[in-house]
Amino acid sequence: MTEIPEYTDPECSECGNESSAIDLSSFGIREGISETIVSTGLEQPNAAPIGIILKGGRPFVRLFKGSHTWANVLKEKYLVANIVYDSLLFVRSTFFDLEPSEFDYAPVRGLSFPTLKEAAAWVIFECINVKNNDQALVTDLVPIEAGFNEDNRKDLPVPNRGFNAVLEATVHATRYQLTGEEKYLELIRHYETLASKCGGEKEKKAMKLLYEILGL
Amino acid sequence: MTEIPEYTDPECSECGNESSAIDLSSFGIREGISETIVSTGLEQPNAAPIGIILKGGRPFVRLFKGSHTWANVLKEKYLVANIVYDSLLFVRSTFFDLEPSEFDYAPVRGLSFPTLKEAAAWVIFECINVKNNDQALVTDLVPIEAGFNEDNRKDLPVPNRGFNAVLEATVHATRYQLTGEEKYLELIRHYETLASKCGGEKEKKAMKLLYEILGL
Repeated sequence: MTEIPEYTDPECSECGNESSAIDLSSFGIREGISETIVSTGLEQPNAAPIGIILKGGRPFVRLFKGSHTWANVLKEKYLVANIVYDSLLFVRSTFFDLEPSEFDYAPVRGLSFPTLKEAAAWVIFECINVKNNDQALVTDLVPIEAGFNEDNRKDLPVPNRGFNAVLEATVHATRYQLTGEEKYLELIRHYETLASKCGGEKEKKAMKLLYEILGL
Repeated sequence: MTEIPEYTDPECSECGNESSAIDLSSFGIREGISETIVSTGLEQPNAAPIGIILKGGRPFVRLFKGSHTWANVLKEKYLVANIVYDSLLFVRSTFFDLEPSEFDYAPVRGLSFPTLKEAAAWVIFECINVKNNDQALVTDLVPIEAGFNEDNRKDLPVPNRGFNAVLEATVHATRYQLTGEEKYLELIRHYETLASKCGGEKEKKAMKLLYEILGL
């Protein structure tokens, strides 16, 4: 069930403006880099882990050239940041297409935005000031709508070094695939030990899948 | 404001039993090791980061000999696990005593249990089957009461590699203090870079404090 709350930001000096009325921190997006799974594609949904960067109150994102997310944002100028606590979904969405059944759709501005059913919350952003070069695209983000999936919020998330280790291992796995450098394999093995020691069932499955993907 | 919810576990075969009626996962404690800040001390409150271990549904904890937490649990046979999302509080409670004003008190069984005001949730455990040897104490945990601090739940937590890096750096800092081994300093410097790149203000303050403590 998706609940769309009232958006108010009592400290916002520009209230009345559609974008500034969404308090991003309520939806998990704060200063620094929030590790979300971004869904895009108004015609064919796609999902991939992307860090939403917030610096000095300005949300933006950097997308590497050639990915589905990059192509969709370049074409459609929208993306959805999903807050997800499932480590296996981070690994799956990094290396595979998710199933169509894993998406919900939020109707906004006459469009139908893909969100993840597994998300605890999601924020739809319009992409403005899109700058695209040979390597990457950088775009500012203006939140236009957001919601919670209350069912996924009822179990409180807790800091878990095993979950964190899966995130790190996934980052290093993509670098290993790009470069083939042995140092990334060493890091991945270190994080596998941590995921196995501190994680739960999801973290163990996630690392098993990562090892399969890398042929380890 | 602390809200004490109703405890029900429809899948529990032993319902009616006080302990089994608390669904630990609702309070953030799941399979693997949940990184909490444990408060103890019915007379003088104390807090320190401790991993609550859940294996095959059995919650237990290992406490190293000589700490305040170890002494309090040995004497009083209770501990409180606080779910906290503040990275600075993890560092502070590892190396310093918290202020008395940082604790609330929950009245249960005629006793007054210290909880952390900053916690999103807390679970009071009775410690049974306490086994103490030369190095550490291991005890099974029976949840007897739990609650949420709704004010601390309203901003959704989000996976953040900077927050995670502070946890890792804190673990390695305690090992460095014990052993003086250079390899821990290298890891701490690695995680400082990550906390600085991906974290927010709290993570930067937490790493600054950690560096001060270690004289770096």
